[in-house]
Amino acid sequence: MRLGVCYYPEHWPEAMWKDDAARMKALGIAQVRIAEFAWSRIEPTPGEFDWGWLDRAIDTLGAAGLQVVMCTPTATPPKWLIDQHPDILPVGADGRVRGFGSRRHYDFSSPAYYEASRRICEAVAARYGQHPAVAYWQTDNEYGCHQTVVSYSPAAVKRFREWLKARYGSIDALNTAWGTVFWSMEYRSFDEIEAPVGTVTEAHPSHRLDYQRFASDEVQRYNRMQVDILRAHSPGRPIAHNFMQLFMEFDHYKVAADLDVATWDSYPLGALDQQWFAPEVKARYLRTGHPDFASFNHDVYRGMSKLPFWVMEQQPGPVNWAHWNPAPLPGMVRLWSWEAFAHGAGCVSYFRWRQAPFAQEQMHAGLNTPDNRPDLGSAEAARVAEEIEAVLAAAKGGRDFDVKTPVALVLDYEAKWLFDIHPQGADFHYPRFAVEYYSALRALGFDVDIVSVHAPLDGYRLVVVPPLPIVPDDFAQRLANSGAQVVIGPRTGSKTVDLQIPANLPPGPLAALLPLRVWRVESLRPNISELVRFDMDGAHEGQARHWRDLIELGALVTIAGENEWAVPEVRATFSDGHPAYVKSGTVHYLASLFDEASTQALFARVAREAGITPQPLGDAIRVSRRGGFTWVFNYGPGTHTLSADIPDEAIVIGSRTIEPQGVSAYRS
Amino acid sequence: MRLGVCYYPEHWPEAMWKDDAARMKALGIAQVRIAEFAWSRIEPTPGEFDWGWLDRAIDTLGAAGLQVVMCTPTATPPKWLIDQHPDILPVGADGRVRGFGSRRHYDFSSPAYYEASRRICEAVAARYGQHPAVAYWQTDNEYGCHQTVVSYSPAAVKRFREWLKARYGSIDALNTAWGTVFWSMEYRSFDEIEAPVGTVTEAHPSHRLDYQRFASDEVQRYNRMQVDILRAHSPGRPIAHNFMQLFMEFDHYKVAADLDVATWDSYPLGALDQQWFAPEVKARYLRTGHPDFASFNHDVYRGMSKLPFWVMEQQPGPVNWAHWNPAPLPGMVRLWSWEAFAHGAGCVSYFRWRQAPFAQEQMHAGLNTPDNRPDLGSAEAARVAEEIEAVLAAAKGGRDFDVKTPVALVLDYEAKWLFDIHPQGADFHYPRFAVEYYSALRALGFDVDIVSVHAPLDGYRLVVVPPLPIVPDDFAQRLANSGAQVVIGPRTGSKTVDLQIPANLPPGPLAALLPLRVWRVESLRPNISELVRFDMDGAHEGQARHWRDLIELGALVTIAGENEWAVPEVRATFSDGHPAYVKSGTVHYLASLFDEASTQALFARVAREAGITPQPLGDAIRVSRRGGFTWVFNYGPGTHTLSADIPDEAIVIGSRTIEPQGVSAYRS
Amino acid sequence: MRLGVCYYPEHWPEAMWKDDAARMKALGIAQVRIAEFAWSRIEPTPGEFDWGWLDRAIDTLGAAGLQVVMCTPTATPPKWLIDQHPDILPVGADGRVRGFGSRRHYDFSSPAYYEASRRICEAVAARYGQHPAVAYWQTDNEYGCHQTVVSYSPAAVKRFREWLKARYGSIDALNTAWGTVFWSMEYRSFDEIEAPVGTVTEAHPSHRLDYQRFASDEVQRYNRMQVDILRAHSPGRPIAHNFMQLFMEFDHYKVAADLDVATWDSYPLGALDQQWFAPEVKARYLRTGHPDFASFNHDVYRGMSKLPFWVMEQQPGPVNWAHWNPAPLPGMVRLWSWEAFAHGAGCVSYFRWRQAPFAQEQMHAGLNTPDNRPDLGSAEAARVAEEIEAVLAAAKGGRDFDVKTPVALVLDYEAKWLFDIHPQGADFHYPRFAVEYYSALRALGFDVDIVSVHAPLDGYRLVVVPPLPIVPDDFAQRLANSGAQVVIGPRTGSKTVDLQIPANLPPGPLAALLPLRVWRVESLRPNISELVRFDMDGAHEGQARHWRDLIELGALVTIAGENEWAVPEVRATFSDGHPAYVKSGTVHYLASLFDEASTQALFARVAREAGITPQPLGDAIRVSRRGGFTWVFNYGPGTHTLSADIPDEAIVIGSRTIEPQGVSAYRS
Repeated sequence: MRLGVCYYPEHWPEAMWKDDAARMKALGIAQVRIAEFAWSRIEPTPGEFDWGWLDRAIDTLGAAGLQVVMCTPTATPPKWLIDQHPDILPVGADGRVRGFGSRRHYDFSSPAYYEASRRICEAVAARYGQHPAVAYWQTDNEYGCHQTVVSYSPAAVKRFREWLKARYGSIDALNTAWGTVFWSMEYRSFDEIEAPVGTVTEAHPSHRLDYQRFASDEVQRYNRMQVDILRAHSPGRPIAHNFMQLFMEFDHYKVAADLDVATWDSYPLGALDQQWFAPEVKARYLRTGHPDFASFNHDVYRGMSKLPFWVMEQQPGPVNWAHWNPAPLPGMVRLWSWEAFAHGAGCVSYFRWRQAPFAQEQMHAGLNTPDNRPDLGSAEAARVAEEIEAVLAAAKGGRDFDVKTPVALVLDYEAKWLFDIHPQGADFHYPRFAVEYYSALRALGFDVDIVSVHAPLDGYRLVVVPPLPIVPDDFAQRLANSGAQVVIGPRTGSKTVDLQIPANLPPGPLAALLPLRVWRVESLRPNISELVRFDMDGAHEGQARHWRDLIELGALVTIAGENEWAVPEVRATFSDGHPAYVKSGTVHYLASLFDEASTQALFARVAREAGITPQPLGDAIRVSRRGGFTWVFNYGPGTHTLSADIPDEAIVIGSRTIEPQGVSAYRS
Repeated sequence: MRLGVCYYPEHWPEAMWKDDAARMKALGIAQVRIAEFAWSRIEPTPGEFDWGWLDRAIDTLGAAGLQVVMCTPTATPPKWLIDQHPDILPVGADGRVRGFGSRRHYDFSSPAYYEASRRICEAVAARYGQHPAVAYWQTDNEYGCHQTVVSYSPAAVKRFREWLKARYGSIDALNTAWGTVFWSMEYRSFDEIEAPVGTVTEAHPSHRLDYQRFASDEVQRYNRMQVDILRAHSPGRPIAHNFMQLFMEFDHYKVAADLDVATWDSYPLGALDQQWFAPEVKARYLRTGHPDFASFNHDVYRGMSKLPFWVMEQQPGPVNWAHWNPAPLPGMVRLWSWEAFAHGAGCVSYFRWRQAPFAQEQMHAGLNTPDNRPDLGSAEAARVAEEIEAVLAAAKGGRDFDVKTPVALVLDYEAKWLFDIHPQGADFHYPRFAVEYYSALRALGFDVDIVSVHAPLDGYRLVVVPPLPIVPDDFAQRLANSGAQVVIGPRTGSKTVDLQIPANLPPGPLAALLPLRVWRVESLRPNISELVRFDMDGAHEGQARHWRDLIELGALVTIAGENEWAVPEVRATFSDGHPAYVKSGTVHYLASLFDEASTQALFARVAREAGITPQPLGDAIRVSRRGGFTWVFNYGPGTHTLSADIPDEAIVIGSRTIEPQGVSAYRS
Repeated sequence: MRLGVCYYPEHWPEAMWKDDAARMKALGIAQVRIAEFAWSRIEPTPGEFDWGWLDRAIDTLGAAGLQVVMCTPTATPPKWLIDQHPDILPVGADGRVRGFGSRRHYDFSSPAYYEASRRICEAVAARYGQHPAVAYWQTDNEYGCHQTVVSYSPAAVKRFREWLKARYGSIDALNTAWGTVFWSMEYRSFDEIEAPVGTVTEAHPSHRLDYQRFASDEVQRYNRMQVDILRAHSPGRPIAHNFMQLFMEFDHYKVAADLDVATWDSYPLGALDQQWFAPEVKARYLRTGHPDFASFNHDVYRGMSKLPFWVMEQQPGPVNWAHWNPAPLPGMVRLWSWEAFAHGAGCVSYFRWRQAPFAQEQMHAGLNTPDNRPDLGSAEAARVAEEIEAVLAAAKGGRDFDVKTPVALVLDYEAKWLFDIHPQGADFHYPRFAVEYYSALRALGFDVDIVSVHAPLDGYRLVVVPPLPIVPDDFAQRLANSGAQVVIGPRTGSKTVDLQIPANLPPGPLAALLPLRVWRVESLRPNISELVRFDMDGAHEGQARHWRDLIELGALVTIAGENEWAVPEVRATFSDGHPAYVKSGTVHYLASLFDEASTQALFARVAREAGITPQPLGDAIRVSRRGGFTWVFNYGPGTHTLSADIPDEAIVIGSRTIEPQGVSAYRS
């Protein structure tokens, strides 16, 4: 547990650097990220490097006892490079080249940019790979930001064709996998295939899904190139990348697998503004952020990080990039920081040291104002630094980041792509549904691991699977072997890996666990919800929204080598009699997406069946447990009082009464 | 009255075909449409035809006693053809080429595609023109789907110039007709004229209207080319095309005139989602469709079909292409089928035999699920097949499709284009207003003929004319000669054929019947409606929406050779005293678009004046009469009971009590 | 005070001209604007001029005693010119060329068009510069209409680079001014700089602001070229341009400085439909227009006109170009005309003499209908003509257009651009906030001068400054010297001229007057407002919307040469305790944008402190004083009665009781 900050020495007179470093140190900052946008200063003219300023900046930080997180500067290729190689620029879905003048103006598939990136990474890594102050590396910055994963350039199409050739081997195999016969879309060679864009009506969904897979793989390949260079020049220093909040345009599991630290950039207020939340929810959490949004991301990135994950960029005040940009309430910077640590973060690094007075982000707050006075975030960061000391002192025998919670939620990147491409209902937004399931679990007091569909499931008591269209062949077996109660959302198992309907209809390979057949589906308009009668602990009425799977119950299943006719138990029905929620063995299948209260009630019951006890918390309080401590966060407008069962001396942060925006922690 | 189905043998293993055919036959299917998207299988390589599979498919169907509706495959040119002739691709309003990868990726004006179409049509027609199983032909598929009527390609512009030359003769005539002097838009030769798109502000409306007329004529020319080929190779076999629901981008009267059968593709739930209906209306009819929407289309296409019209594609379950895709309530597939027959359909053909497990439409239901089990639609289709037998048995002396109803509604394609191009109020949506008038008539229990403005009007008692900006010179005389009461919507006669204001102001040529002058108009915001006081059977207050014609009453008219000053009777006034509804002789002029209740009350009164008796039905029940039978359809949530006056033995379908989604028919 | 009309002889048979002229004269029309769109008639073929018709038209008007406002026809270059020089066409933000077929299809930076414009202006000016009937000139027509100020053509980029070179001298200076180091956006030469468009994410705000400044300067340069030609050929005849309502895309102060008369085109109903007003406001003023909208524009253009400003185009009935186009209530044409004169107009010129029956604007009313009968506007214009005589007769010793009102509002074009480019809150719409401040002043009964930030402020008692991000260095001193009470909106002084945050934070250079520091800001969602407690004449609660400046109070200020710690008085606080409104000396700083009632109450109090007495008028009545007369306008649905203190004989227009849409005037 330590604090960091993002710093841009190139933005400020060199005369300020020493004081900056000293004040960072005094504040309790341990590490400083630099140089991710500094290419034009490192190499102002093609081939002529200016290392002097950067040497001095790193030396200054190091001399102050700060560890440097050094970055490759590839997120912002300079103008001269673009002018040399205009084909570096990506191409949008509208067919227009996306130009120079902001950032991320490069195409992952551009050979020229791949080569130029290799060259600058080599140069930076060679220069600083062994520098004593450089403790960590960051590759690039926020891969995919501003919709830059996918490009429709000729270079991308060329590599896509090779990718397809590698995946399918023969064009006949591709035609079969995609079902191109449908509208005479059959190809005679891979060279006939274009990007799936600009078609008269919707492009082929399998074609689109493969294009997204390809684009995701291009990110992985590009990042791996950088990682390989850094490892060669700077062995032993952990390599990170800063991912984004709820960003799912490439497969983060794959990219993270090449890294040592998965980090993410946390802007709870900007996220609230930009995501799907209803206007009244955006008003309720206006200056706190949604209580489960940052947590969700913490759990996502913890799940894919070899070393403890970091928050590489932590919102310290108002940002500039949402539609509306309110300020965090006093206390929220501290609360967010502790929330990260409570979820296992190794570092919380504030963005940025000082608000820049110029350019696109001049309205983005920092720990210091542009006139170099401490902003509110500074005091809160200082308090966190002190509290970290208190917690570490109170820790008995160190902390264990890998404590397993009994609850896992499966998050899948392809699911996001597939439902975007093939929604069947205009508001079928996978990230929303995943967060809603997560939020229900958190509101019940559970800590949650967020895991890949390929992750081991042993040890979990409750596994929750948001709509998962493509199910690996071994998933049913692994779910069964886990012994956990399993809750599965609608549309799970509804597609093959080629984006076809499985031969046995949904739930496809899960039919082995779930003796049922989804013979029909419905998507529901926003002004339609369907009454559902739950037969749980007493009758309960709820609402189904967005979607209905219509289920035929019963199937032959193989139990202990015997074929047996199995029929699931019906636990809820729609008002027209169709099953809304069925259970077979340990597997619970939800045929729709229920309202918040029903989802919580349902998860609570299944949790009890799994032998774990829910602790309903409402919409303001959240609890996290880790490393022998329990943290309690107050997102609401009223005070919260810790149980009298907790001895005074166990409280190591905050106090028994938790004010709004407060956090307390106690040994547990 | 017979059933059909759409079938894609190329999507399924040949081993399944025989069973498919047998099961179709067993279900009561008489005809099977095939091959409209099969070009890449018919001609997988340029010039090399593979007829074998198609021969066998047709033979299999024929052997089972099924009639084949054979299609030309031109809606989906294969990739190799596009690669040979990239100028086949159409160009969108944004100037971008609309690419390969879905369907309808061709430009009606492309010489290369015209030639390629001629070649493939010749080949198919020559191969199957005399095949005993081939009973009918379909040209192409859904002309204009996905906004493909209009293209802005160089090829289109070239042909547009020729079209203009033929229409106007000289460039001076064009300049005068359009009024290009207005903004120095005068042309010195036809070669200076571009497509009316991409201009700094709105393009010239006459230019735009002519471009739409040209594009419509291009569809007609293209279809006629196919028809000529089919007639040459397959004389005597009726030729159809499958038009779309409420689709008005080309003049269907003109295209249908070259065909034998006008057919349309009926998707009541998808239509409800996509059309203008208010959210609460979309909720009310979520799983039934709007009770007047399919009927409207039946009446449109009956009016232009030489042989009894067909529903070429009937929705059998949920579709995939609307924003949200609910499932029809049980019974609706039967109800929709009977509704078509009650409106004079010769065939109802379900789309499709079996849901495809791949590609763009994999979520579109069929009569069978992808795992080849009968879906709900199958049972309903089977019931319809049985009921057809009952009706035919009960029919006394055959059915007469041409029974004239006393009520006609005039539908005009140019009106749609003109109001789109030149709306004057942002929500002046012609199809909506036409359907609203139709719906009011249907809610009053009337059967309605929908006719062209050029159709004979003799025999009708009531003629309803939704807003009709361009009125043919002889229309006033034909209306007068018909003897019918005539209800005319606002904006009628407001434009000349060149899209100018008539010299005498609106109603232009109708001033001979209507001694009034529309000296000013207003379009009204959605949150504005104007109070109207109707002096009908007792006073009645209603609301005017969207539009107001301000009328000066009185004109010199020639009556029996004498010039006479005539003043219409005022039957309703706006609250500021302007006339809202006036009557002159048999002609009723509405100066606005009234609320639903007022429109119904007004139509009811005029109907009584015409000597026909309205039978108000509300918003759930609809009645159709044809061939000696009366059908009663229940779109609502409650039961409906037939009158005790109807003897039990007269009821040939259903029963006296009609359940929700039920239909009964009785001899009448 | 005189009336005019816009006339298009080229649209009508020459046989009608003489009668048209006679009827204009009879109606009381004094001047006639012609020929602004007539290039294709003046020069139908390259280089071959057809002056005959135009000679005869001008002679006909002159012979009838009418003065001609002659126009340069450059708003509509003919097709042959575009075909000769396609690079005349502007390029949109989407990279597409904006084509021929409407109007304003030219790029201000096109060398070919600059030359062609010079040539046609020379020809027209040489032909008519000394014509006795030609009394005035108009350059072009509505510069910037249809978003044509900014073009992204290569020609524009070329000139932009030169503009930058002239502004910054060296590329280093530019890099520093913009802060291009931020994302490695540094340039090595001016030739590397592109237009700030099509970037991956938002382009650099300083780059964008400079591009807008450049584009504005291009308009000025282009207009000055025309002015220079006209002055050379037609010395002594005033030159005008017709600006648009609330149009702020170029700096009108600069362009007007080259003219003699600033005129504008007034369409109150179209404006209401298109601007930000809430639907209920649009309904309330549907057929009158907003009571402060035309006035605002009158005051804007009066402020920049050397001779009395004109309304060059006055809406006479419904227009065609808004989303919905209602008709003015009877009386409104008269009311609008008098409102213009009451604000100092020299001429009100109706658009147009007769509604055209063809082309894009055929649904735009004129004084006469297309069948050449007087429309309602004619009678109202005739009444105004008579009333002008009455007023002039009653005027004691002539009218004084330059009477100073005690209230000034500062309007700034760069502020509009800056907030568009750099809003920080999605609805921070500068023109709206300026009009809201103006409206509050007008509702308090004040006449208002609208002035540039560079205008002299002496003599004003109250100066209101809507959000003004860039404050000139001398502004604080001029405000202080004026002796006026000064009300300053939020965000004032928040940016340097380079669009950076000032080194001392906002209010930047105004800190000399305002001892405070804006250390944080918030933008607020539309469903968020913050409670404000005002300590004014008794406590008052109001709402803050859109924005909050968080203020640190107190600073060292230099008073009479002494440095002194000054702290402003807090007059309102937000519910979280932050100051919402503070006062220091004569300067009032508002930290947010308050609701309408609070803004009025606040302005009223400050006005009283300034020694001027507000006269609250509500939302229907407006009063203007000028030249010894007071006009009272009734925008509401009820009657209004003038005070009994006004003697009957003082009333020169209308009567004591003012009907809805009525206007009265009395000597005062």
